[in-house]
Amino acid sequence: MPQYQAPLADYQFLLNDWFSLDSHYQSLKVTDFDFALANEVIAQGARFAEDVIAPLNRPGDEQGCTLKDGKVTTPDGFAQAYHDYIANGWNSMLGSADYDGQELPHTMAVPVHEMLHSANLSWRLTSMLTESAVLAVTKHASQALKDTYLAKLISGEWTGTMNLTEPHAGTDLALLSTKAEPQPDGSYRVTGNKIFITGGDHEWTSNIVHMVLARLPDAPAGVKGISLFLVPKFIPDSQGEPAAANAVSVGSIEHKMGIKGSPTCVMNYDGATGWLVGEPNQGLACMFTMMNDARFQVGLEGLGASEASFQGALAYARERVQSRAPQGVQNPDGKADPIIFQPDVARMLLTQKALTEGCRALAVFYAGYMDVERYGDADRKAIAGQVLGFLTPVCKGFMTDMGLESTSLGIQVFGGHGYIREWGMEQLMRDVRIAQLYEGTNGIQALDLIGRKLTRDKGQMMEATFTELSARVKAITDKTAQSQARALLDDWRATSADCLGLEASDVASAASDYLAYTAYSILGVLWYSMADAASRSENRTLASAKRKTCDFYQARILPRRDAHKVAMQAGAASVLQVSGSEFDYI
Amino acid sequence: MPQYQAPLADYQFLLNDWFSLDSHYQSLKVTDFDFALANEVIAQGARFAEDVIAPLNRPGDEQGCTLKDGKVTTPDGFAQAYHDYIANGWNSMLGSADYDGQELPHTMAVPVHEMLHSANLSWRLTSMLTESAVLAVTKHASQALKDTYLAKLISGEWTGTMNLTEPHAGTDLALLSTKAEPQPDGSYRVTGNKIFITGGDHEWTSNIVHMVLARLPDAPAGVKGISLFLVPKFIPDSQGEPAAANAVSVGSIEHKMGIKGSPTCVMNYDGATGWLVGEPNQGLACMFTMMNDARFQVGLEGLGASEASFQGALAYARERVQSRAPQGVQNPDGKADPIIFQPDVARMLLTQKALTEGCRALAVFYAGYMDVERYGDADRKAIAGQVLGFLTPVCKGFMTDMGLESTSLGIQVFGGHGYIREWGMEQLMRDVRIAQLYEGTNGIQALDLIGRKLTRDKGQMMEATFTELSARVKAITDKTAQSQARALLDDWRATSADCLGLEASDVASAASDYLAYTAYSILGVLWYSMADAASRSENRTLASAKRKTCDFYQARILPRRDAHKVAMQAGAASVLQVSGSEFDYI
Repeated sequence: MPQYQAPLADYQFLLNDWFSLDSHYQSLKVTDFDFALANEVIAQGARFAEDVIAPLNRPGDEQGCTLKDGKVTTPDGFAQAYHDYIANGWNSMLGSADYDGQELPHTMAVPVHEMLHSANLSWRLTSMLTESAVLAVTKHASQALKDTYLAKLISGEWTGTMNLTEPHAGTDLALLSTKAEPQPDGSYRVTGNKIFITGGDHEWTSNIVHMVLARLPDAPAGVKGISLFLVPKFIPDSQGEPAAANAVSVGSIEHKMGIKGSPTCVMNYDGATGWLVGEPNQGLACMFTMMNDARFQVGLEGLGASEASFQGALAYARERVQSRAPQGVQNPDGKADPIIFQPDVARMLLTQKALTEGCRALAVFYAGYMDVERYGDADRKAIAGQVLGFLTPVCKGFMTDMGLESTSLGIQVFGGHGYIREWGMEQLMRDVRIAQLYEGTNGIQALDLIGRKLTRDKGQMMEATFTELSARVKAITDKTAQSQARALLDDWRATSADCLGLEASDVASAASDYLAYTAYSILGVLWYSMADAASRSENRTLASAKRKTCDFYQARILPRRDAHKVAMQAGAASVLQVSGSEFDYI
Repeated sequence: MPQYQAPLADYQFLLNDWFSLDSHYQSLKVTDFDFALANEVIAQGARFAEDVIAPLNRPGDEQGCTLKDGKVTTPDGFAQAYHDYIANGWNSMLGSADYDGQELPHTMAVPVHEMLHSANLSWRLTSMLTESAVLAVTKHASQALKDTYLAKLISGEWTGTMNLTEPHAGTDLALLSTKAEPQPDGSYRVTGNKIFITGGDHEWTSNIVHMVLARLPDAPAGVKGISLFLVPKFIPDSQGEPAAANAVSVGSIEHKMGIKGSPTCVMNYDGATGWLVGEPNQGLACMFTMMNDARFQVGLEGLGASEASFQGALAYARERVQSRAPQGVQNPDGKADPIIFQPDVARMLLTQKALTEGCRALAVFYAGYMDVERYGDADRKAIAGQVLGFLTPVCKGFMTDMGLESTSLGIQVFGGHGYIREWGMEQLMRDVRIAQLYEGTNGIQALDLIGRKLTRDKGQMMEATFTELSARVKAITDKTAQSQARALLDDWRATSADCLGLEASDVASAASDYLAYTAYSILGVLWYSMADAASRSENRTLASAKRKTCDFYQARILPRRDAHKVAMQAGAASVLQVSGSEFDYI
């Protein structure tokens, strides 16, 4: 596998030619920023991802993490890379200036985040969750907690974790049983066991800040009785420095399919000291501040893995010489042609390319609304909130499903060599497989989309998303492409509207297919829009590539949309009529 | 994950109620066999797979294979299980009675093979390839070679391997460079390096028989200059017992994504003594005798892994209690309902079930023609050869793709727990991923299907397959189901016929989508046929389950067929117009 190279040309095209980043910033009146600065930030991030993080990826998979005497050690080089990361300010890109954050726009940070995921998914996860913890503390914590924790979390001096899952409470947080008892000094004693805690312990920092869901003694049952607590590994002293060890310990670390360089911990809280974040019994809402951010980031994991796999497969397909191409000899001086000239290999590469670049456009589109939500006026903020609410499960679910498909195709291009660990292609598939599971399984994303975001919302978020995408369609100058994009979008809106009257079980039975149908539709629109923007680029190779990849997407990928549409309309009976021993007729 | 339980009820239904095994044997005049015997053989095989082989699967993955001082050691228990396997006669099920084989029909052996794959893919591979070697020796070797090797390969006292791939010759065997020089005594000195050799060395048996492709000194270039050689690890003495060590050594063993209990070896031949099998320069044809058998068996690997994953996911979905089902409370005494009542979980389980049982029907259908090819009269043999020729790449390609999808769904049903090694679900996905790659990648299967088997053959094999499937359709008693199956089959035939005039590059560009389109069409027909047969079963649970699973397949899986049909018709330009730096516009 070749050294990872960040997709700078594609981001330059997307941000400048397609997204018109300068106009975007001007419309938001954020005069400190422009495309030139974004380009510089992203190029620096690219170099960091390529030079510092990517080389640790294969060795980290082989070495994995260890737990000894209650302490977790990550693979060689991970801690030093993290120290370089925070020293170079990468952890503070998005944090509030009040706590020494850089407050860069999301449209600058998201490209860097994709690159970090491509370079080394295991390494990236801990800093990713720290950013989510920063959001929760910023939005919901008391001033005292902010003053103690926020600057250190934003700089990365300390890292953060999310503690939701318990052995018997995963998807269903109503079942969680971790307890928090109020103490006379205003703190709480937190007791319970949490599993699947990414970055639950490591040797990188002097402290770790756990964001823990637990129940107060008088809490109502179910999700209305969950509160959020901040529980540090070491309790800060009056100077804010880590002092007394808290009653938090690592029970074990998981042995996993992939992301072996990331410590996934069982955390035991034995009367650990914690502080309430937000109001009592409002923990779920506070956690969703973290969760929504993390869900989009997990989508970027799928994108990042896909890009890395595409690069590996493309380089191999250009070098590997096997058989003659059916359309004619391509390499007359050799005994055979590079396999990239095999139509079926080109099909696999183009599937990777069309899905990866399509999802990257979706990520930029999403990041744009994150900027609007931060800087925009009230009206635009409200629209951005609706679009982000709708697209969060689409990004998480689809981009991670796409990540699995793409990394599997990358293996397939390599043939048997793709199955051998030293090439690195199989690691990408093992690593990205987690992304369909955590931060809410993709089934939960689909239920969130069609349940909360479409039907319970009575279609408002969907309509807002439709309107925003319509603006993209209107801007397409080629009339044929415009009408094709319009037809796609109208079909999606009408099909979505048809869901509004469905029974709850029909909604649930349609969920996964509706998410896929939605994502393929939106990617179709974005591809028409991208190809149109590219047609005006001075880079004629890029212009041609975008047009042809758009053609490929519409001809060979988009037809899946119809299969999902038919499947989603089959109704609940199609899945619920089979029951009991009919599954295995024993 | 629960202990694996062989799908005996489904095989009883398939062989007796659906396939009418007694009539099948009677029509072939093989009076020694009947369904009752088949049922007994399969039940015994099931017990062996469940009790002896399955328990070694997880530990084998953790322990893996080692190479020390040139000798390979497989995981603890593997060798003993193999000794039990051959002692109980499982290795000799299909072998010729002339060499103490049992000559059982394929319709008895295939179910046992599926079960072995479900139980432990790594363990199964070596005996699987031995069976393929038996076929090549039986069909192509001299009497002297048969007398020395065949009884021991059939009993399993010795194992066999297939040696095709070299570092620079995988798909394209024309590039292989291993040499064979004739010696005065009629033997050959074989020199070269082979990679990816399954079971290339192990501690199970006193000898290993390598079937090696190599070039004679005067051989023409390309695939017309390849010959097949039998190269034993130890050269038999005049009594046929292993004696002098041959110049064969293991260079290394591969570190792989999965099948870690199976030793995948780099084999070095340094003037090793070998004997020609078949005619000079006819090695490829001889190898295809092995290869076609192995390709169908690899399809069974996909089926076996899918079944094992379905069982794990089904048991977990029944036990795991999370959230309430949207259609109403299912478990009023608990705080939540088993997740099997979640429509999206049921969708995943039914996708596994519909694909697994559909592919199992395809396997039985295929095995029936293997019986016909062995026992039938000349006319039926010719038809069987055509059907098998057409369906071999379909079974290999589709059943392994399905294996990956199903094992991934099995993980998804488990949520985060599916990613943890101890549950065993992720191992199934890692193990089955190889099946899309070896014995010809699935892209090669697709090219074989649409290139050799459809277009070069001018549609004759396709027409034979159509005719045989038509007979199944005619036997459907329900008129609505019959006409739906008929429509499916007619659409497939017409679409296939449309391919006959295509240019080579259009053929290649359509290949993978044509294979999937074909497989989904055939499974649709088989599902209608199975549901119809089941409607007459005394087991009303089974009858209901088959009808409902058929409904699920037709409503929610079959629509994929149309997406593949549209994609395959997009033509070569859709993939070939993107070229050079347009892939990455650098």
